[in-house]
Amino acid sequence: MKQPTHVSEAVIRRLPRYYRKLDELERRGVTRVSSGDLSQELNLNPSQIRQDFNCFGGYGQQGYGYQVSMLRREIAAILGLTRKYRAVVVGAGHIGQALVQYYGFEREGFDICGIFDIKPSLIGAPVGSLRVLSADGLTDFVRENGVEIGIITTQKDAAQSTANKLAESGVRGIWNFTPMDVMTGVPVENVSMNDSLYILAYRLQQ
Amino acid sequence: MKQPTHVSEAVIRRLPRYYRKLDELERRGVTRVSSGDLSQELNLNPSQIRQDFNCFGGYGQQGYGYQVSMLRREIAAILGLTRKYRAVVVGAGHIGQALVQYYGFEREGFDICGIFDIKPSLIGAPVGSLRVLSADGLTDFVRENGVEIGIITTQKDAAQSTANKLAESGVRGIWNFTPMDVMTGVPVENVSMNDSLYILAYRLQQ
Repeated sequence: MKQPTHVSEAVIRRLPRYYRKLDELERRGVTRVSSGDLSQELNLNPSQIRQDFNCFGGYGQQGYGYQVSMLRREIAAILGLTRKYRAVVVGAGHIGQALVQYYGFEREGFDICGIFDIKPSLIGAPVGSLRVLSADGLTDFVRENGVEIGIITTQKDAAQSTANKLAESGVRGIWNFTPMDVMTGVPVENVSMNDSLYILAYRLQQ
Repeated sequence: MKQPTHVSEAVIRRLPRYYRKLDELERRGVTRVSSGDLSQELNLNPSQIRQDFNCFGGYGQQGYGYQVSMLRREIAAILGLTRKYRAVVVGAGHIGQALVQYYGFEREGFDICGIFDIKPSLIGAPVGSLRVLSADGLTDFVRENGVEIGIITTQKDAAQSTANKLAESGVRGIWNFTPMDVMTGVPVENVSMNDSLYILAYRLQQ
């Protein structure tokens, strides 16, 4: 794999879609795919797809297309999906509990090994194979277990302080499900579910 | 409000963030805000913010800034958040149940009035104030209740067929939580939670 020098944010944002589609094609037993086929499946311009893959060194052959399993593996490696990550969920409400019990993440290398809350009534409650722990122990847990990713599913008013606490405890990235954008010294991905609902409402007016 | 003629996808994608931030400022009692302040809060360029608001007719005054409550209301109107929408959830797993029980949506005008599944063991189970209904009755329910939005939280293999069924039943938009992108004749917003997790993994390599 060619080590990419500078890859634009827009290309990076498309990589997960390529990855999911190639993963699906591989499961369906498809071995080769052209940029034209991918373009139809993904509703993207074929020349854009070729250009994106060129950023990372190509892998295609004129008139032959791309080898699905090789390209999937290369994109997985670029995204960092070839290793394991330990993660904790902070906020044991409905969304937090749903994430712990969604086993798709574990299959992809994201091991949620702790769920935390401040509410005494929730502490000790079973969630999947875990039990809710007191948020008082969050910092020690992150340090002792080499947790790299903090997932925030608290009330939105607690989102920023939780992000700060996670970053200070040593997580390397934050996945934020609250509708409050958070900023810290580590990378943050804000899921912003509400935003896509608002966009959908916008489309319904058109 | 000036009726916008053509507004680019990129501007539309930023509107929900503006809306959330203005809503937060209004709740905090802030009455006026400059594009500079917004730019710091949102980590966007101030000239971009001014340009975006100009697409919809402005509302700012040089040296005075924007009136928070007026601008919030205008953006809410553009996004279509000043009316009610009825929605159903298809797929009564953990994520589907979490969405039904997240009361933030109802406060914003999205009334989830039904949850459906095909699993006999789930049908009849209570979820918040609802009970899981059989997916056999989905089409009739959508028609009889004027449901406009279908929310897909099924297994990913069932995502496209569920989208087709929802569109045929008469929903006007689809909010898809599965990792499978779906396409139908009605607008679809794919939440793609996994994508933001993959992006986070990518950032952890940098």
